[in-house]
Amino acid sequence: MRILIDGMGGDNAPEEIVAGVIDAAKEIDEELLIIGKKEEITACLDKQGGNGKNIEVIDASMTITNDEAPVKAVRTKKDSSIVKGLNMVKNGEADVFLSAGSTGALLAGGLFILGRIQGIDRPTLATIYPVIGGQPSLLVDTGANAECKPDNLFEFATMGSIYMEKVIGRKNPTVGLVNNGTEEGKGTTLTKAAYELIEKSNLNFIGSVEARDLPDGICDVIVTDGFTGNAIIKLTEGMGLMVLREMKRRFLADTRSKLGAVLLKKQLMGIKREFNYAEYGGAPFLGVKGAMLKMHGSSDALAVKQTIIKAIPYVREKVVDTIQNSVLEIEEILISE
Amino acid sequence: MRILIDGMGGDNAPEEIVAGVIDAAKEIDEELLIIGKKEEITACLDKQGGNGKNIEVIDASMTITNDEAPVKAVRTKKDSSIVKGLNMVKNGEADVFLSAGSTGALLAGGLFILGRIQGIDRPTLATIYPVIGGQPSLLVDTGANAECKPDNLFEFATMGSIYMEKVIGRKNPTVGLVNNGTEEGKGTTLTKAAYELIEKSNLNFIGSVEARDLPDGICDVIVTDGFTGNAIIKLTEGMGLMVLREMKRRFLADTRSKLGAVLLKKQLMGIKREFNYAEYGGAPFLGVKGAMLKMHGSSDALAVKQTIIKAIPYVREKVVDTIQNSVLEIEEILISE
Repeated sequence: MRILIDGMGGDNAPEEIVAGVIDAAKEIDEELLIIGKKEEITACLDKQGGNGKNIEVIDASMTITNDEAPVKAVRTKKDSSIVKGLNMVKNGEADVFLSAGSTGALLAGGLFILGRIQGIDRPTLATIYPVIGGQPSLLVDTGANAECKPDNLFEFATMGSIYMEKVIGRKNPTVGLVNNGTEEGKGTTLTKAAYELIEKSNLNFIGSVEARDLPDGICDVIVTDGFTGNAIIKLTEGMGLMVLREMKRRFLADTRSKLGAVLLKKQLMGIKREFNYAEYGGAPFLGVKGAMLKMHGSSDALAVKQTIIKAIPYVREKVVDTIQNSVLEIEEILISE
Repeated sequence: MRILIDGMGGDNAPEEIVAGVIDAAKEIDEELLIIGKKEEITACLDKQGGNGKNIEVIDASMTITNDEAPVKAVRTKKDSSIVKGLNMVKNGEADVFLSAGSTGALLAGGLFILGRIQGIDRPTLATIYPVIGGQPSLLVDTGANAECKPDNLFEFATMGSIYMEKVIGRKNPTVGLVNNGTEEGKGTTLTKAAYELIEKSNLNFIGSVEARDLPDGICDVIVTDGFTGNAIIKLTEGMGLMVLREMKRRFLADTRSKLGAVLLKKQLMGIKREFNYAEYGGAPFLGVKGAMLKMHGSSDALAVKQTIIKAIPYVREKVVDTIQNSVLEIEEILISE
């Protein structure tokens, strides 16, 4: 298996990316390829003592930044790590592409270079949703599709269930539809129609779920449009940061509190670690003809390593093929409407 | 000023409602009226020693529960505390109505009994959004309008700004539009069009805001559709509960942690109190021809007292009249489109 990592994407590139690849190389036997400015990446590898035998560097002379218009960047920067990397997946030179770079460029690249799986209207960016003290959920969609039709939400539910089962190992994952209430008749035109479609499928649908219950891990696959999904993942992140900051501020307020915080240090670090869970494992862009994972822009070496490890079952369990095979079932239900 | 409180609404009615009214009566001189089953309310007042001279009980023989279809309940239960209470506001027998009862019934009652202010297309339920360690924001809409047009979001921004300035006392409040990014060109058809409308107004518009920044109090008035607003307020609540529960679980894990938690007790209670802020102050239903405040279903005596106190500037500052007067300005901008 050849796992290709974008050495140029994210706030901490290339240092933390390279460090994460080196750490992963110590644990797994898969071939690891880093794509980016060869000189820079190689220097980084040398410095970190990472010239192990299963790390290869692929040269790409350009980078795409977060400030660039994604479509234009993908169309014009042919030798960027993102465009060249996705082309390698397309051509079978790599099995999966991982990047902490521009989300917009990755989505545009996924659509233009890999292309949609035939029968999938809208590929979805699926993000691991942290559940403190429990098993994480998968949130689909988290921003690839701000405006959705009911069919799209049904596709998200299907693709999310496949990923959750094959990659995260959740058997017969439960699916919940984000709604503004769980009572019958609640919802928008969109959620009501999506509810009916998902209900007809073979998915393990538990019905509507409220945002209040997401932090408790009420379902394995959280289905919503990309606008709401974006608000959910970002608010969760913002609340986590705010809570940690507020605890720090209060726990340093006086000597007595500081002493208490020292005694609780292990527990406080545990909470902090769990809040960071969101950054681990990456977000697959499901529904395109190739495996790709978007990492958080602020990914550190640990997040990179974790995402590399998650990429293995993504490839081995043939998630892309499984989604391809599920299209017929989706279409049967859509046509019967 | 006559402040009318629904004695029958919410999980803790009538005990906590009555307790909150008694507590408020000790602090303010306004006439307080409790509406509900007279015998029950009076017994409760007697038991709690609250037969002070500025608390009056108004009889209403029926109650509307959360399980009832709201429109039908409002149409048929004429002698319910909600229907009778809103009619008293309509007829000038009370200046403002407060209830922790069924949100659906309150919204339906507000629309049918008080009626919309002429020129306001969609009244909005505005909720105080907690900002830990800072000044709260106001979130409009939080569920009254799951599906919105751009005009509606502009109306929410206007009405929210008026309430924030007049009742919460925030001078020239900043207005932010929830969006899936702050870069130009980001957003849905709805948010893009709403952005243009709000930008043309005299409101203190700071542009798009991301959900990530809401817990930091990035703006005074948070504008969004009711579906997203509902998700935001409920997720914030769910995250707060989850964090408190997780802290408790971890801080009781072993003797050392327990000792630390004892030393931090004051600080932990402070965090807990701030998370509960959401429950204080009530949610005004803005855009109807009368003042009404929805309290959280789980309101306790403190929340009831706080909401009663917030109701005073709501009435005194003539928020309803001010919204009425703002309609011309809104219409000028909508017509110029």
